[in-house]
Amino acid sequence: MSGTTETPDAAPDPAPAAPDTGLLSPVRAGTPVEAAVSDPAWLQAVLDAEAALARAQAALGTVPAAAAATVTRLARAELLDVRALALESRETANPVVGLVRALTRVVAAEDPAAAEYVHRGSTSQDVLDTGSMLVAARALRLVRADLTRTARALAHLAERHRDTPLAGRTLALQAVPTTFGLKAAGWRQLVLDAERRLAHVAEHGLPVSLGGAAGTLAGYLEYARIDGPDGPDTDPGDYLDRLLDAFAAETGLARPVLPWHALRTPVADLAAALAFTAGALGKIAVDVQALTRTEVGEVAEPTAAGRGSSSAMPHKRNPVLATLIRSAALQVPVIAAGLTQCLLAEDERSAGAWHAEWQLLREALRLTGGAAHTAVELAEGLEVRPGRMRANLDLTGSQVVSERISAVLAPRLGKAAAKQLLTDASGRAERDGRPLAGVLAELPELKGVFEPQELALLCDPTAYTGLAGPLVDRALREL
Amino acid sequence: MSGTTETPDAAPDPAPAAPDTGLLSPVRAGTPVEAAVSDPAWLQAVLDAEAALARAQAALGTVPAAAAATVTRLARAELLDVRALALESRETANPVVGLVRALTRVVAAEDPAAAEYVHRGSTSQDVLDTGSMLVAARALRLVRADLTRTARALAHLAERHRDTPLAGRTLALQAVPTTFGLKAAGWRQLVLDAERRLAHVAEHGLPVSLGGAAGTLAGYLEYARIDGPDGPDTDPGDYLDRLLDAFAAETGLARPVLPWHALRTPVADLAAALAFTAGALGKIAVDVQALTRTEVGEVAEPTAAGRGSSSAMPHKRNPVLATLIRSAALQVPVIAAGLTQCLLAEDERSAGAWHAEWQLLREALRLTGGAAHTAVELAEGLEVRPGRMRANLDLTGSQVVSERISAVLAPRLGKAAAKQLLTDASGRAERDGRPLAGVLAELPELKGVFEPQELALLCDPTAYTGLAGPLVDRALREL
Amino acid sequence: MSGTTETPDAAPDPAPAAPDTGLLSPVRAGTPVEAAVSDPAWLQAVLDAEAALARAQAALGTVPAAAAATVTRLARAELLDVRALALESRETANPVVGLVRALTRVVAAEDPAAAEYVHRGSTSQDVLDTGSMLVAARALRLVRADLTRTARALAHLAERHRDTPLAGRTLALQAVPTTFGLKAAGWRQLVLDAERRLAHVAEHGLPVSLGGAAGTLAGYLEYARIDGPDGPDTDPGDYLDRLLDAFAAETGLARPVLPWHALRTPVADLAAALAFTAGALGKIAVDVQALTRTEVGEVAEPTAAGRGSSSAMPHKRNPVLATLIRSAALQVPVIAAGLTQCLLAEDERSAGAWHAEWQLLREALRLTGGAAHTAVELAEGLEVRPGRMRANLDLTGSQVVSERISAVLAPRLGKAAAKQLLTDASGRAERDGRPLAGVLAELPELKGVFEPQELALLCDPTAYTGLAGPLVDRALREL
Amino acid sequence: MSGTTETPDAAPDPAPAAPDTGLLSPVRAGTPVEAAVSDPAWLQAVLDAEAALARAQAALGTVPAAAAATVTRLARAELLDVRALALESRETANPVVGLVRALTRVVAAEDPAAAEYVHRGSTSQDVLDTGSMLVAARALRLVRADLTRTARALAHLAERHRDTPLAGRTLALQAVPTTFGLKAAGWRQLVLDAERRLAHVAEHGLPVSLGGAAGTLAGYLEYARIDGPDGPDTDPGDYLDRLLDAFAAETGLARPVLPWHALRTPVADLAAALAFTAGALGKIAVDVQALTRTEVGEVAEPTAAGRGSSSAMPHKRNPVLATLIRSAALQVPVIAAGLTQCLLAEDERSAGAWHAEWQLLREALRLTGGAAHTAVELAEGLEVRPGRMRANLDLTGSQVVSERISAVLAPRLGKAAAKQLLTDASGRAERDGRPLAGVLAELPELKGVFEPQELALLCDPTAYTGLAGPLVDRALREL
Repeated sequence: MSGTTETPDAAPDPAPAAPDTGLLSPVRAGTPVEAAVSDPAWLQAVLDAEAALARAQAALGTVPAAAAATVTRLARAELLDVRALALESRETANPVVGLVRALTRVVAAEDPAAAEYVHRGSTSQDVLDTGSMLVAARALRLVRADLTRTARALAHLAERHRDTPLAGRTLALQAVPTTFGLKAAGWRQLVLDAERRLAHVAEHGLPVSLGGAAGTLAGYLEYARIDGPDGPDTDPGDYLDRLLDAFAAETGLARPVLPWHALRTPVADLAAALAFTAGALGKIAVDVQALTRTEVGEVAEPTAAGRGSSSAMPHKRNPVLATLIRSAALQVPVIAAGLTQCLLAEDERSAGAWHAEWQLLREALRLTGGAAHTAVELAEGLEVRPGRMRANLDLTGSQVVSERISAVLAPRLGKAAAKQLLTDASGRAERDGRPLAGVLAELPELKGVFEPQELALLCDPTAYTGLAGPLVDRALREL
Repeated sequence: MSGTTETPDAAPDPAPAAPDTGLLSPVRAGTPVEAAVSDPAWLQAVLDAEAALARAQAALGTVPAAAAATVTRLARAELLDVRALALESRETANPVVGLVRALTRVVAAEDPAAAEYVHRGSTSQDVLDTGSMLVAARALRLVRADLTRTARALAHLAERHRDTPLAGRTLALQAVPTTFGLKAAGWRQLVLDAERRLAHVAEHGLPVSLGGAAGTLAGYLEYARIDGPDGPDTDPGDYLDRLLDAFAAETGLARPVLPWHALRTPVADLAAALAFTAGALGKIAVDVQALTRTEVGEVAEPTAAGRGSSSAMPHKRNPVLATLIRSAALQVPVIAAGLTQCLLAEDERSAGAWHAEWQLLREALRLTGGAAHTAVELAEGLEVRPGRMRANLDLTGSQVVSERISAVLAPRLGKAAAKQLLTDASGRAERDGRPLAGVLAELPELKGVFEPQELALLCDPTAYTGLAGPLVDRALREL
Repeated sequence: MSGTTETPDAAPDPAPAAPDTGLLSPVRAGTPVEAAVSDPAWLQAVLDAEAALARAQAALGTVPAAAAATVTRLARAELLDVRALALESRETANPVVGLVRALTRVVAAEDPAAAEYVHRGSTSQDVLDTGSMLVAARALRLVRADLTRTARALAHLAERHRDTPLAGRTLALQAVPTTFGLKAAGWRQLVLDAERRLAHVAEHGLPVSLGGAAGTLAGYLEYARIDGPDGPDTDPGDYLDRLLDAFAAETGLARPVLPWHALRTPVADLAAALAFTAGALGKIAVDVQALTRTEVGEVAEPTAAGRGSSSAMPHKRNPVLATLIRSAALQVPVIAAGLTQCLLAEDERSAGAWHAEWQLLREALRLTGGAAHTAVELAEGLEVRPGRMRANLDLTGSQVVSERISAVLAPRLGKAAAKQLLTDASGRAERDGRPLAGVLAELPELKGVFEPQELALLCDPTAYTGLAGPLVDRALREL
Repeated sequence: MSGTTETPDAAPDPAPAAPDTGLLSPVRAGTPVEAAVSDPAWLQAVLDAEAALARAQAALGTVPAAAAATVTRLARAELLDVRALALESRETANPVVGLVRALTRVVAAEDPAAAEYVHRGSTSQDVLDTGSMLVAARALRLVRADLTRTARALAHLAERHRDTPLAGRTLALQAVPTTFGLKAAGWRQLVLDAERRLAHVAEHGLPVSLGGAAGTLAGYLEYARIDGPDGPDTDPGDYLDRLLDAFAAETGLARPVLPWHALRTPVADLAAALAFTAGALGKIAVDVQALTRTEVGEVAEPTAAGRGSSSAMPHKRNPVLATLIRSAALQVPVIAAGLTQCLLAEDERSAGAWHAEWQLLREALRLTGGAAHTAVELAEGLEVRPGRMRANLDLTGSQVVSERISAVLAPRLGKAAAKQLLTDASGRAERDGRPLAGVLAELPELKGVFEPQELALLCDPTAYTGLAGPLVDRALREL
């Protein structure tokens, strides 16, 4: 640690911080989003909020411009001891009280007068919430970029495999044929849905937090009346508008209608959009896993040196990307529920509901971001095996088109009779391990009804993909 | 039960259905939303989907118009035995297989030819999902209307009490003064946020479900080729667009980009918006409870005969409306997490993730709807006690304005010294039970700094409500 | 409804209760547990608590024995209007205030003097919590019996298939061979674990609730001093012990250490045990689904008329039992989280956290009970297909024993070299679609190392099931 | 980093690990449990598992004793690069593959022959699960010790305040009097309940994991047959028992009935016990917060330099300990739900459900442990203010004993009439701000019924604490 680092006491830290390496959370280990939401990044964002607040007040003339510049220059995470702040945070239940003290010391060491303007009129929650929104904004940019890349890769898959038939599976069983293009288009649609939800939050849902001690901005106003250009004659409404606009402008965040210390819409919205994103990616992951099963073998994850290897079994190529994504998708929805519960924040600022949000929010951001980062690699490198798809379609001896045959027979035999006939024939075909077409050809009820080649076409799974093609076309028009 | 009721067997029902009375869920007992999401209502909505599907196919010429009319006329919940359908649903894991059989029987009894067109080309999930969206649409209308009434009542409270001071409370303690108007405006903002989220879902997020057995609409297309006006020459893309448009038009629901059997965006969006709404109302409830506490007494719930009475204590007027609302707010977020988890729906249709949604969705709708219905009564009848608010502000002997005094002293003594002086004076005032102004007046450091009346004004909590007024004004401009 | 039915008003019920048919929750529709936790059953249990309380007080001489007998005789759900009670419950946030009023009226109609002793000294929560414990006790008996049957059926499967080889699958891929017996023994172990957890709760965790208005039993004591045999000289400690013992004896529930109005250990314990049970059964369900997949086909659900049929596809036999079970397993854990959150019950009785429990608890009981009931049928009827298991083991051309070959080669080539050689050979075998044994036989490194039949045995998957057999034997010793 | 440190590549780490400082989770920042579950601690625990496995095999003669000793000596976290392992873990979805490679290199550098025995016959999940159980065992020791201290402090409070009256509060309102001793005894009971649940898990619920690639221990057996003293004649059942016993003995963990790779009882049990503990402590926290409110003021948190100070308001002494505890209590139940969901682990080892557990488990351990650590300080230092309790009891002018008066009047006026009279009198007393005794004294119905001093005693809240004393006595007998 450098000499300028803020150290509160001479005594050695009794419990050094452990590096958060991602050892227990490989889905985000080493990903850009992990760095963007780390403790140092979060600390920097809170410091950015402090600096932006000083500049916003300077723009209104209630803080000297030079002081704001000094604060801005010195509001650097590397000048503070993040672990010391964490330890101190137990005394006040949040890290900002210590941070303000530390920042004030750093500023005072250089310019004692400027130090008077640190955190002026503010409260812990203003800068921590604003900092969290900055972190979220930065993280969402990364997540959205990865979703966009994923969607693009899935669009290519959907296009290339627009007409590649595979078994549509419902309730674990082959149902009727579909195409891999339609499957990929569906995955892409979910990714687009996720991106839109995150975009909406990023563009409208990340406001600055500015309320002062209990949401009235009284401290800010008081200082404006003491130090501001209009002194005691400061117009409240005008001051409110200008301060909020300036703070929003300095941070690049939105302007809220009201202070939201205890109106937690932004956090709940973030939670919902992140849970949706993780869940959407999780759907892709469970599909990839189902198709990867040894007995199915219709897709394989991209290979890379060492990727997917097992500590015990040399032959395995585990679907690790899907596994990582699914591990995130199983965590984020419950984490999001924890955040949503925190809407029940009593009074002007809650004694606990607010504090419960921080780590949950960080975890939701980095798990979702890690999953999105992983999804890019999965979508761009997925190996598709049309041959295995075709072979699996033949497994049931045309039962996979029993719906079609049933429809064709219905006008001739009646719906119920047609369905019964098919049910019986399917059973016999399965019992005897014969193709359905063969069983049907022998039925007295169908004698003379179909030509053999007609029956063959009717039983051809690749000829029964319905509207899969046009659906892909329409879905790919969506941007 | 009438003679036309569908009864599958002669054997008596071994386990009659118990009425769902709301005994264990008073927050929604007897509310309109409870009826709107009941089993009979859900059954009717699925039947509405069946009828709409027949009409949509009739509009395209693939089903005779008369048959569609007959199906529409007979698709009535009261003609079926909902309990029998529930019992049968265990055989197929969903209630639609039995429903189709029963509806077919009812139609066939009147017009055997029409019966051939029931559920034509369709799959269970198409009509159950479409029915669920119809239920949601109907329920959301009720919830939104109640939110709008609640918001209006809160706007009145915010206006009337724009300048009514009360203690702003943070971390359970009085912090600085605020106004009841600002508090009410904050509640209203949350309610507006909720209404907007529900409106967005209601207007864009409730699509018809139309995919057929595995999402390719192959069955629909097959029947169009067999029976439709263009026969085998039916243009797939054109048919897709027209069928979807017709089904959307007949139901009043949106047209989805893709079949969403396993792309559960609509359900996840509903879950998120409902959890937000319940949480937002829950925030109001916990605030009302905090203000209702015997020792605080700043608000009281509306009285009504019998309302809030206790089985043991004659004197009590329990805040039952807030209690009901909070009971819902504690349930919906975890229920919503369950729904969000169901995004991980494998394959073309999931074996379980879909089935887990139904009851959770109904519970989320009726708990949230019940809470909204209860909130109307709470907001319209809330008794506000400015006298108690004022009296409580005086409890701390002006400590509640220590922030202000600290700000005023800072330029004279330095920020740190001012804060220390106030901390000491606050401690002394509390220990001795004296007003802070008195303690301050005796401090040598402040000798000659303030006139007595200046000090009195400085210590007057009602003069330190900051920008509460302008904030209320701005918030009330939001519609 | 009979003429003695309690109807609070002449006015017609504005919103009749809808039957709760299970339409949206087939996993429990028509199961015994559904009836055991229905509104009428819950109402009866609360009435049972009222009656037991009267008898307990009679045993101590503070209530006339005849009055207690009359209360007991008339405390019948069928004499009350459960829907009316539900509607009234909105006035007091719980159904007991109205229930006490109604029961008092029913008793007074027959014996006005006895009516004075209804609910004497009690509070709503005492009888509702006691009633809930009675419901839980009754439901747990059903659930445990079903778990015991399930475990027995799984024990038979484990025994019969102790040595039936199938592919052990990890991360979606075939890993090394295992046996179906070991898989079934694992399922059984989970079921036993669940049964033990429920047994522990049933035997130790379901106490009577007895606290009076705020947990001091002051009302009970006051009445004992007024009416009891020792009058004002009633010994408090002695009275406490005797009253609790009598109430516990009358209900068959446990005696708690302290009143638990706001110490919600019993509910949290129930929630945890139910979530575990649902999750344990869910594990079986997802395994059955994986083995049922068309391409795997190693097990099939028991067939029954109509079971598993699809509305569209005649050939399908959907794994509906597993689907039902999984639908419960996806719901109960989040519901349990909602119950656990309610541990945060403020004060002597909470304004909302208590109220949030009721419906969640009922849902957790009936979903878990429904899943257990369904599991009996699944376990007793599961069709096991050793032939398909064997065939699937051959799919990878002996790669499934690569671990073994690697171990055998390690001493000769070194661990790393052996693993590398196997990795290469596995890759080649897969690329060329050849058996691994063949590829290995040609390797120069292995020249002369193995006899052909040695290599064949080494590559035989059925010869590499490790300790599966002894594990099954040991697991089946567990009762 | 030292020269012996394992570095996989020459290339610089592209993303250094950020220290996990607890900045966003003050409840555990710097607590012993935080260190016990950190990444380095977890890594060490997994290495301990590797070493114990080598020693266990050595005890059976299948690994040379010297090799086991070398592995044990070198299985040190400080010799590996935990961040590098985390980054590598993305390739295999778990950190063990890289760890084994790294450990092998470290051992090989000293003794190439010993390196052959690292991880022999094992699989990633065996050592990671065993390591996790070791971490849990260590963390639970800390948590339980803190719970024991907390319970002891609460016992002192309960004893000292056995007869200190305060208002019992229900549904946010004063109900009837209780004692602070009873409240503290209730808190203690919850803490004892939590300790017992954790003790049960610690003593019976933390098993070694030993299954090999797919739960058959085939790899272990194979090596025993190759290298063990009995060679190919190794008796499977005997070997199984001895290996499991030896591994259990070397780790101090329990012996499981079956390999639990996909039977996640231990993790679900841990989750349930931790959620219960966090919730139990959360109950204490919300009670402390309610009693701390400015208007109530019946307790205060222990003061310490800087503790509870606000960044803006010099006078505040925030209840930060309760806030920290509550922040944990709001997070752990949903985290536990996530863990419980992971019971649905498909196949012999899951592709994602297992991976989702690790970080959730760590978070549940450290949040709960941090809360317990914080609770010690809260319980040992809580300031109790009997004077404020007494004063608050007088706030309602004796309404708080209306239940008693009602009981006393019931035999004279009838229950309903007595309750009505009290309801009216309470209303009048509240409206007029007069003591209830005064209002009652004037009622014609009560003329001559009571002497004035009788009425005064009847209205004395401190004389109506019921069985609070005996309840405390009985509760304190519980150990």
